[in-house]
Amino acid sequence: MTYRERLEHAWTSSGSLLCVGIDPDAARLPDPLRGAEQPFLAFGKAIADSTAPYCAAFKPQFAHFAGQGRTDELRALCQYIREAHPDRLLVLDAKRGDIGSTAAFYAREAFEIHAADAVTVNPYMGGDTLEPFTRDPAHGVFVLCKTSNPGSDEFQNLRLDGGRLLFEEVARRAATGWNGNANVGLVVGATYPGEIESVRALAPDLPLLVPGIGAQGGDLKATLRAGLDARGTGVLINASRSIIHAGSKDDFGARAADAARALNEQINALRP
Amino acid sequence: MTYRERLEHAWTSSGSLLCVGIDPDAARLPDPLRGAEQPFLAFGKAIADSTAPYCAAFKPQFAHFAGQGRTDELRALCQYIREAHPDRLLVLDAKRGDIGSTAAFYAREAFEIHAADAVTVNPYMGGDTLEPFTRDPAHGVFVLCKTSNPGSDEFQNLRLDGGRLLFEEVARRAATGWNGNANVGLVVGATYPGEIESVRALAPDLPLLVPGIGAQGGDLKATLRAGLDARGTGVLINASRSIIHAGSKDDFGARAADAARALNEQINALRP
Repeated sequence: MTYRERLEHAWTSSGSLLCVGIDPDAARLPDPLRGAEQPFLAFGKAIADSTAPYCAAFKPQFAHFAGQGRTDELRALCQYIREAHPDRLLVLDAKRGDIGSTAAFYAREAFEIHAADAVTVNPYMGGDTLEPFTRDPAHGVFVLCKTSNPGSDEFQNLRLDGGRLLFEEVARRAATGWNGNANVGLVVGATYPGEIESVRALAPDLPLLVPGIGAQGGDLKATLRAGLDARGTGVLINASRSIIHAGSKDDFGARAADAARALNEQINALRP
Repeated sequence: MTYRERLEHAWTSSGSLLCVGIDPDAARLPDPLRGAEQPFLAFGKAIADSTAPYCAAFKPQFAHFAGQGRTDELRALCQYIREAHPDRLLVLDAKRGDIGSTAAFYAREAFEIHAADAVTVNPYMGGDTLEPFTRDPAHGVFVLCKTSNPGSDEFQNLRLDGGRLLFEEVARRAATGWNGNANVGLVVGATYPGEIESVRALAPDLPLLVPGIGAQGGDLKATLRAGLDARGTGVLINASRSIIHAGSKDDFGARAADAARALNEQINALRP
């Protein structure tokens, strides 16, 4: 199956556009997992198993594991998700980017070591640095375009000679230059629905990964109106903290499932 | 000691501007290390010990370890360098960048898990995403500005409304907006000496980390003419493959030392 087929299958088989972000924080682990031997792995597995009925994708966030000395648990979690939830897309959120010979090692990290379907990447170094991630049609990327953080205007909204904004130029090149294997998507923050509209106009067929719903306060209705493609699909709406920290006691899995189900219903009610 | 003091001490105590990039590749390990239990660690230690007399800094490259399943050896190597070569600057080359709450975990990864003095970071997401890396004056960053790869023109050389190029705007903001703790530097490729000159004009006092000498074919003389600061220092000239793969037999350490010594002499002969 190509990456694009895997993504389409994830959407259709789940009936969902939701992506559950798995961003564990030792300071916020549920009570029953404190003191466990591999608490990040146990937490990630419980979140994945609980929320799988309501989502199309999982997105483990690299820094949360690496910054807390838990990369081995990330690897084990990715392998678990791959086996236990084979119909869900697995996106490694690592925002990689480096010169070609080094990018090839980052691609191995994402697609071989972590067995991810896709990885988030940064476009600043240029399209040649993305090619090692896109040369195999079985895997894909989501390229940072307009990110959800308050300071994303600083560079992404700079106006270029000619009139386009920088993030629009990224969207244009992604849609026209980098997508020969139909495996390029874009990251656009739900905190900027106006910019999502511009991106969708420049890249009508590219999948959009949309963080910023939930803890970051993005606008779901405006996001979907701007981001859905002509078929009423084409987006992955990511939520992390609002789902994974919905509960902190023994029932944290059931609480996460409730939060994922509720958000998924909200999303689907807004689809055409 | 602040980061800036550590960097100055690394330059003055070594009498060198050389940075040795440690980018191990299983396919190119020296013969005596093939089949060793922790070959990347053994390789990195041997390279560091052999080249330390001729360099100011070491720069282990994250992807080479992570993409080959060797992050534990990277961590051990960083700890070793920290202890065995305390006067050398330790730069983790990982090109991180993410929203603030996640960037804080990347900062922990670089500065606590790997005990690095500095980490390379990507500016595309904006200055607010760099703040978690710069808030502690004991650690620093090198921000990607004009990178050494062939395709770096694609975005970095886009002309902005107003006339400046994108990489120049990154340099300007680094020098004027982000450097309150005197711990911000810039990455500029030796393959583009004209651009280094522009960067140095916009950021007269910022340390420059310069990859692209050696395997990538950058011009050392033009790089130094453009990049040295008013004191005849202020740059770290990185070489990786041309040093670490100088030999492949039992004498690989001695060959690496020869290559580092020769490049260091070339550099110092070009300083005022």
